[in-house]
Amino acid sequence: MSGYSPRRFKALTFHDAAPRFAGGADSPRAYLERCLETIAEREPVVQAWVVLNEAGARAAADASTERWRAGRPLSPIDGMPIGIKDLLETRDMPTEMGCAAFRGNFPKRDNAAVWALREAGAVILGKTVTTELGASHPGPTTNPFDSARTPGGSSSGSAAAVAARMVPVAIGSQVGGSIIRPASYCGNVALKPTQGAINRGERQATSMSTHGPHAGSIEDMWLVAIEIARRAGGDPGRLALTGPDAPPRARRPERLIVMETEAWRKLDDAARSAFETVAERLRAAGVTVLRRGDHPWIEAFERAIGDMLAMTTAITNWENHWLLRNLVAQNPESVSARSRARLAQAERMTPQDYMLRLMEREEARLRFAALAPLADAVISVASPGPAPLWSGDVPGQPLAPRPTGDAVFNTPSSGLGAPVVTVPLTAVGGMPMGIQVMAQPHADAQATAIARWMLEAIEPVEA
Amino acid sequence: MSGYSPRRFKALTFHDAAPRFAGGADSPRAYLERCLETIAEREPVVQAWVVLNEAGARAAADASTERWRAGRPLSPIDGMPIGIKDLLETRDMPTEMGCAAFRGNFPKRDNAAVWALREAGAVILGKTVTTELGASHPGPTTNPFDSARTPGGSSSGSAAAVAARMVPVAIGSQVGGSIIRPASYCGNVALKPTQGAINRGERQATSMSTHGPHAGSIEDMWLVAIEIARRAGGDPGRLALTGPDAPPRARRPERLIVMETEAWRKLDDAARSAFETVAERLRAAGVTVLRRGDHPWIEAFERAIGDMLAMTTAITNWENHWLLRNLVAQNPESVSARSRARLAQAERMTPQDYMLRLMEREEARLRFAALAPLADAVISVASPGPAPLWSGDVPGQPLAPRPTGDAVFNTPSSGLGAPVVTVPLTAVGGMPMGIQVMAQPHADAQATAIARWMLEAIEPVEA
Repeated sequence: MSGYSPRRFKALTFHDAAPRFAGGADSPRAYLERCLETIAEREPVVQAWVVLNEAGARAAADASTERWRAGRPLSPIDGMPIGIKDLLETRDMPTEMGCAAFRGNFPKRDNAAVWALREAGAVILGKTVTTELGASHPGPTTNPFDSARTPGGSSSGSAAAVAARMVPVAIGSQVGGSIIRPASYCGNVALKPTQGAINRGERQATSMSTHGPHAGSIEDMWLVAIEIARRAGGDPGRLALTGPDAPPRARRPERLIVMETEAWRKLDDAARSAFETVAERLRAAGVTVLRRGDHPWIEAFERAIGDMLAMTTAITNWENHWLLRNLVAQNPESVSARSRARLAQAERMTPQDYMLRLMEREEARLRFAALAPLADAVISVASPGPAPLWSGDVPGQPLAPRPTGDAVFNTPSSGLGAPVVTVPLTAVGGMPMGIQVMAQPHADAQATAIARWMLEAIEPVEA
Repeated sequence: MSGYSPRRFKALTFHDAAPRFAGGADSPRAYLERCLETIAEREPVVQAWVVLNEAGARAAADASTERWRAGRPLSPIDGMPIGIKDLLETRDMPTEMGCAAFRGNFPKRDNAAVWALREAGAVILGKTVTTELGASHPGPTTNPFDSARTPGGSSSGSAAAVAARMVPVAIGSQVGGSIIRPASYCGNVALKPTQGAINRGERQATSMSTHGPHAGSIEDMWLVAIEIARRAGGDPGRLALTGPDAPPRARRPERLIVMETEAWRKLDDAARSAFETVAERLRAAGVTVLRRGDHPWIEAFERAIGDMLAMTTAITNWENHWLLRNLVAQNPESVSARSRARLAQAERMTPQDYMLRLMEREEARLRFAALAPLADAVISVASPGPAPLWSGDVPGQPLAPRPTGDAVFNTPSSGLGAPVVTVPLTAVGGMPMGIQVMAQPHADAQATAIARWMLEAIEPVEA
């Protein structure tokens, strides 16, 4: 047991360091060196990084130091060291996607978000570990609060690097639960934006994936997201993330809806108790908290998302199977048995099966839209408890189905295309568990404002 | 002057050859050899192909021959030789995209549509010439009806290969006017499907590109489209092309709307006269033909598409500029001056500019949807006249702005995401000019049925 406490843990932040860069009391280069020291200390156990570009980062930090001293930073995140999930292309580092088939893959291109971060002056420090192709086969990363546990996935390295105070922000991506779940397990703040609101660049192959920041603070989370969107915009054909340049101010909601999902009965007593205590504290702070029994539209919404894990898994398996089929055709051993099993599932589907799933998803989106007049946001646990134990595959034994944890509380926001912010507001058994705030599509700033208020006004719960 | 006549020209067809494969009077291998003979004869001047895989095609044709003789063809297009535009990946041939930066690029993967064609038994014969990256810098292909003229672009080689009777079908792709315009110039039948209705596989970077068949007959056009869609479905998150397995039967429309576009006044007299004669023959056949003065909603639609060429160009320039920026960052000489000019245009835009254009596009889509109750389809010329003369860039001279012709009659259907079929119903000055039939999104089969009726019931016009 790690003894993690949301009250005592101090994550690494950048927004409050930057004001001292202008006067020279601190500098982006010095900030970077502190990050590198932390990495040197913790990386042997945490294993968050695939590759670091220390020389490139130092050069970028020195240039940033000059800009701050000259009073001309490119943005509030000028000089911020950032990790990039190793699914996104970077011109100065390989992009191996946690997959043997891509070992040594080095396309020398920047993903749109990476390009935008560089334009804003951020320091691209390295590539963080992802599960294989963002799916279920895990990488080597361990949970910084207990190395016997998973950091979650697929954004394993991004979540762990932030939790280990190696960087203030790392970019993750989510198709099912790949930002919010690891953020929950690692005590991060994180944003999974509205579908399409942050340009995915070359990664357009799936209808419900997003790129988003893991951060030590809600301020840094927002600053990174908006600075990317201001430069790279949204996906082709989609509206970009919009909102204030500065982090949205805390905003107390009038009414919140609790989302239970199909997994509510599977929550263990400690996790449920932690969440219910948060709900009580919200009520005590004057918020009306609505449950599925309180309104027929909430009940209808819960029924529409009742099969969301299977629905989103089927959709994503289908959308990814072109990639997998081509890899397997070249060399079956170049992807894991877990990914080959996903391919086999997809190859049992037809385009008609896929379209039926899309129509189910569309119905769920309508049911969610109907909740807009009822409440300011929807809240839930961000994972079904804290990070599970994981000690690796055992040769000869059946593969664990979910080595990086269960996405059942995350697939609703993924399927709905809705923005969600998770905040580290509870601990269960001495490990972090996030509380998530989901808003209507394009209300990313509102989800952020409510999440910020919860961080500032609600006393964390340890169960 | 070529003396092309839509009455006399006999395009190469497959659907009517297949019935003789079972009895052995003909065979896919013999069909292929005839195609290769035509290629040997015409390719030195037409230059439609980047690369041919003759050995692979012969092996595939032999396997198909066996299936037909055994009475077990995989589909009606089993054994059909097909050309693939060199923007789409093929596992057995390089994908060079008409761009120096991609010379020798050989990812050994099949695009989703190529995979589906192989599953249906089609013979993937080679890669056809595209303009650079599907934009405006032309390749070497000449118009098969007059080598002094452009074949159109960007699907230059696909259009020309079909016109030269080298193959019965070739796959093209359209972002602005890249299927329908070259098909018009080359006397092809062609389908630009509903946006998203044919899976683009790895080519998801733009919000309004489609893959579709150029063909010698409407039957082969439909068979290829539906056999792809039955296997590969649509884009991620989109409904696939649906319709009958057999080519839709000819259907006489009750009412058609003439779309004039911003370019109507620029049409030369011969092209306009040819179109008006077609309109007269439609009326004589009992079709009500509506013009912009006939209904305020038609007038409102014309106004909403009045800036469509600039709107779609801006949208596409923005969506493609990540690719171009990365290429130019590596080596500015790896793309043409034309593409560098497009990049410069895009880099003057912001995400806000882009989103404004998306909203204009959305308004045009609403105006188009309003036409649904007024008529069965919309018709227009498929290009502003026949193929223009083009003899190549002259060193030291300013670059011709549109060496492969003007897309102004094509960008409306691209921007609207609407299906369109072009048929070779007119000749102007002895060169082909297509008439296009545009329907509401997902009414691809209806556009095909109406286009088929026009081919069968309306006497071609030579002006």
